[in-house]
Amino acid sequence: MKLAMINDKIVPYEQLEPAYLDRGLYFGDGVYEVLRSYNGKIFALDEHLERFQRSLDGIEITGIKIDQIRQKIVQAFEKAGFANAKIYFHITRGSAPRNHTWSEDIKPNFFLTIEGITDHPEDLEKGIWVCTYPDQRWQRCDIKSLNLLANVMARQFAAKKGCEEAILVNEDGLITEGAASAFFGVFGNTLQTSPLADNILPSVSRKYVIKAAMNLKMTLLEQNMTVDAAKHADELFTAVTTKDIIAVTKFDEVTIGNGKIGGYTRKLKEQFQTFTK
Amino acid sequence: MKLAMINDKIVPYEQLEPAYLDRGLYFGDGVYEVLRSYNGKIFALDEHLERFQRSLDGIEITGIKIDQIRQKIVQAFEKAGFANAKIYFHITRGSAPRNHTWSEDIKPNFFLTIEGITDHPEDLEKGIWVCTYPDQRWQRCDIKSLNLLANVMARQFAAKKGCEEAILVNEDGLITEGAASAFFGVFGNTLQTSPLADNILPSVSRKYVIKAAMNLKMTLLEQNMTVDAAKHADELFTAVTTKDIIAVTKFDEVTIGNGKIGGYTRKLKEQFQTFTK
Repeated sequence: MKLAMINDKIVPYEQLEPAYLDRGLYFGDGVYEVLRSYNGKIFALDEHLERFQRSLDGIEITGIKIDQIRQKIVQAFEKAGFANAKIYFHITRGSAPRNHTWSEDIKPNFFLTIEGITDHPEDLEKGIWVCTYPDQRWQRCDIKSLNLLANVMARQFAAKKGCEEAILVNEDGLITEGAASAFFGVFGNTLQTSPLADNILPSVSRKYVIKAAMNLKMTLLEQNMTVDAAKHADELFTAVTTKDIIAVTKFDEVTIGNGKIGGYTRKLKEQFQTFTK
Repeated sequence: MKLAMINDKIVPYEQLEPAYLDRGLYFGDGVYEVLRSYNGKIFALDEHLERFQRSLDGIEITGIKIDQIRQKIVQAFEKAGFANAKIYFHITRGSAPRNHTWSEDIKPNFFLTIEGITDHPEDLEKGIWVCTYPDQRWQRCDIKSLNLLANVMARQFAAKKGCEEAILVNEDGLITEGAASAFFGVFGNTLQTSPLADNILPSVSRKYVIKAAMNLKMTLLEQNMTVDAAKHADELFTAVTTKDIIAVTKFDEVTIGNGKIGGYTRKLKEQFQTFTK
């Protein structure tokens, strides 16, 4: 008889909940987004949904009506009632007996969680310590997929060391991005970050950071940084949906600038906050 | 209120089943094995469990007693009662609110399925058609992890084309392995396959193929094949737990040998079958 075992319990295969047959679990065969709201308003919902559509296209999950996804997000957000909320959602290709290939009639699974965010602006003022880690991710990091084991291992390594983020470095010694953030350097009045490519997530925060930099008349340089260049930057920072701009004041064993949030980082953060109001 | 949404249904977050909070689902944060039995006996159980332990070590899932895993497998196998069974099992790091980093006290989740296999020896005689596809996997394919989206996309591409396997080719134009199989070429009396490295799964079938080749006094060449070399091989085949050796008679648009199972492939298959008796 076809059987399954969940921890210590043997169950008939036919009685398995769809969650146990989710291709998201077997293969990481799904894509996700993280959104946040500021003071009761979801930030950059359109941009996140556009990227989500590109991720779905990237792994050929078809038939999703993005407007319906938007409705679900708004419905959950309104029901939860957090002014400052973190919203996670994913769509997997669906539940089916394990087989790499899928059949066209498979029905995708939608899953969302929503929780409150408490911001700690004083922490952001201090800046964070980051460390480098080899970029071992797959070659389509432009797709925001559930294949995140390389990111997990990088961030656990960083956390063990006492760092708050891992900055990924490819085989050529070039920085790609943070394990869960976009990464930026300030050199004079130039803002440098990796160019968008197959190995870079098209970060929504990145887009708004660049907009902020344009408002400040900074020069934008889209070019991967070497590790050595990062160590000699005037300022470094990461950007991530849940916290916008975060100053990096220590990179590996090197203190950046005077070890406090830099002048451009502060101004960019102020600019960014005008977008989220 | 902290909420979750499963498809169209909003539920309190606290009522979510652990399956929805599985790090296997969020991150592909788990490792797996596929076993088969021949005539009532599980083949190479020790080797699979050894590799499983290495995979667990590779992603730092600790505290698993392999003997207990062995007992679970045997228990399910005996209960299911298939003489020729396919056994899939995985361990994920456990269920927890989504966060890349994990806490040391997280409890891993075990999951297993078992079903019957019907062999079709006449199909294997004919051989299969395979096609090349870019190897877009992460850089630790020696770990048999649940991060399999690159494999899924490769195999779906192959299936759409009418092929039964995708043969992965890295950026240097070299073949690594099949998307779900080990890959071999026969040149004269030389058996060629990729050397074990971070980008190759240490296949249990590979080990037995090499043993078979030694019994046949073949020369072993552990060196990545170019796509062009593969097209000019005397014989090609894949090896996979569920079906042992499978002749490849068409590689991209090129017929291999005379389009039927080759002499060495047949002899290796016969040798292999002495191991599984």
